[in-house]
Amino acid sequence: MQRKEAHASFGGTQEVWRHTSVSLGGEANFAIYLPPQAKQQKVPVLYWLSGLTCTEQNFITKAGAQRVAAELGIAIVAPDTSPRGEGVADSETYDLGQGAGFYVNATQEPWAGHYRMYEYIVTELPALVEDNFPVMPVRGISGHSMGGFGALMIALRNPGRYCSVSAFSPIVAPTQVPWGEKAFSAYLGPDRAAWAAYDPLELLRNAQEHLPILIDQGLADEFLEDQLKPELLKVVAQETGHDLILNLRPGYDHSYYFISSFIDDHIRYFFERISQV
Amino acid sequence: MQRKEAHASFGGTQEVWRHTSVSLGGEANFAIYLPPQAKQQKVPVLYWLSGLTCTEQNFITKAGAQRVAAELGIAIVAPDTSPRGEGVADSETYDLGQGAGFYVNATQEPWAGHYRMYEYIVTELPALVEDNFPVMPVRGISGHSMGGFGALMIALRNPGRYCSVSAFSPIVAPTQVPWGEKAFSAYLGPDRAAWAAYDPLELLRNAQEHLPILIDQGLADEFLEDQLKPELLKVVAQETGHDLILNLRPGYDHSYYFISSFIDDHIRYFFERISQV
Repeated sequence: MQRKEAHASFGGTQEVWRHTSVSLGGEANFAIYLPPQAKQQKVPVLYWLSGLTCTEQNFITKAGAQRVAAELGIAIVAPDTSPRGEGVADSETYDLGQGAGFYVNATQEPWAGHYRMYEYIVTELPALVEDNFPVMPVRGISGHSMGGFGALMIALRNPGRYCSVSAFSPIVAPTQVPWGEKAFSAYLGPDRAAWAAYDPLELLRNAQEHLPILIDQGLADEFLEDQLKPELLKVVAQETGHDLILNLRPGYDHSYYFISSFIDDHIRYFFERISQV
Repeated sequence: MQRKEAHASFGGTQEVWRHTSVSLGGEANFAIYLPPQAKQQKVPVLYWLSGLTCTEQNFITKAGAQRVAAELGIAIVAPDTSPRGEGVADSETYDLGQGAGFYVNATQEPWAGHYRMYEYIVTELPALVEDNFPVMPVRGISGHSMGGFGALMIALRNPGRYCSVSAFSPIVAPTQVPWGEKAFSAYLGPDRAAWAAYDPLELLRNAQEHLPILIDQGLADEFLEDQLKPELLKVVAQETGHDLILNLRPGYDHSYYFISSFIDDHIRYFFERISQV
């Protein structure tokens, strides 16, 4: 494992590491923010999953999350959004292949060899982080768009593994919208029965754990109606009596200007959940 | 004048505009953050000058300044760092030509036709901003590296025009360091007498106004010893009895991680100066 970047930030350190990932079958980058408290003690860790086209860089340079993470003593891990490099399958479109791993384990060729982001995020990366950095196994998960989908899906599939889940502008119904249908068809194949294991709506209907969900969604988001559809999750939450805070924010779009405006709330939400578990 | 971007941000709006600049002889971009207070009343405006290689984008995506600007009701204008486009002279190096205007009025060919960033920042841009946006002519100026130099130089040359000046990691002595010598030689010619009008040390020695200066400088900045040399400004400030707060920050480098860690202090510094003038 090799440290590629280290920058002092709000009294802590913003780092980027590169390692050989077994799940992804190659080299992978992830970012970790270590707050000042991590010099003295182990700290809880929030996993952030980014959206389409992103790398580990977008969140750490644009979200402005370090300030409140430093205040509260929280580490933040931001992985890349797919396997990358020569020999890793790709497409010429932005919403499939490199930069668009969709946090699933692909079963179809040519993707199955490397596209195992689910395993990477759920198992390999936390083990690596908890073995090598001053963090405790107290985990939250959050993300944006494709990564908001990933956060919801991963938290719902893994009861007890995360004490907090939240999302910005998530794709809540990947089996019903163009981004999700394209990615799931490619990675999981045409049989829609195989898609259910990655469908937040289906997972929420059958949730074994009552983990409250926080979502922020901009109402000027250009993808709201065709790709995101948070109201579909709200319906299931109401049917099942699952706590869902869905903040609809007038005027806000799909960009990091939206995320940075409300990221403090999501970090504080994780922090408050820690003391409740 | 054409609006290229508009994003809701902390209750206000982050905008990017494109206009035809007389000073620069072509199209130019600038960013403006309008805080929520600007919907009701005119607000003071902080000008931010970026460093080498930057455009109007770097500060608005990476510094995290909008949060406190929204809290305090301050607009922030972030221009590009040079003229750009076809027909505008350039060099193959990052520290001369496009992206490296150094906030001077060039007198030498091939630069003199477009490279008039001093006139643009001091005269054209504030007039444009004050005519077209809800801002009052209450101005602060700040910047980073080459832009920190620009902020110091412009404030010192224009007594009464700014009520606040501050800088991150500024080039305080451009006539004595490689970046400055290269740029001034090209833009102003070999006669060093012409350089004095853009030399913060010389300007501070002859300052007609006692405008306190705030500087933050990272001690792990890779350019500190060869290019920045803030101690040279400190010596002149001490000789002349000019107020200079020089915060030396252990561990911090030259990146936006440093700027974002302390930008709140600089916005608050401007805000506090407003009430004192």
